[in-house]
Amino acid sequence: MKVRVNVTLKPGVLDPQGAAVRHSLGALGFDGVNKVRQGKVIELDLNQNDPEKAKSQVENMCEKLLANTVIENYSVEIL
Amino acid sequence: MKVRVNVTLKPGVLDPQGAAVRHSLGALGFDGVNKVRQGKVIELDLNQNDPEKAKSQVENMCEKLLANTVIENYSVEIL
Repeated sequence: MKVRVNVTLKPGVLDPQGAAVRHSLGALGFDGVNKVRQGKVIELDLNQNDPEKAKSQVENMCEKLLANTVIENYSVEIL
Repeated sequence: MKVRVNVTLKPGVLDPQGAAVRHSLGALGFDGVNKVRQGKVIELDLNQNDPEKAKSQVENMCEKLLANTVIENYSVEIL
């Protein structure tokens, strides 16, 4: 079973990578970009075939390893 | 208008970051993880309000800056 995890910085946390992308887009002539935030996407392929169990297992992984819950939010999506 | 871009490595391209995550998950006792791939997610806030135009503008940004199309795939999603 394939699972996708989106990890994004919480609102208010500084995102220098996103700011750099925004600046570069401006330099390339792309106008009208108000805000850019960059995060991570992690795709996992699990043996688990029960969607409920897979989701709770992956949420556990996020809490322990994949996301820094002090500054990041995560969402789990079954594919 | 908010747009989300997913940038992932093409199949076959080595993903050392994903391999490290998989190894760490195993070390933490999470079994049954066959494969892990890590990519980027970029959220943009644009002035453009026409979904068609926003999509083509963001695809242009991907080709020029956001993705390395030699080794990465991207997908654009209007939020």
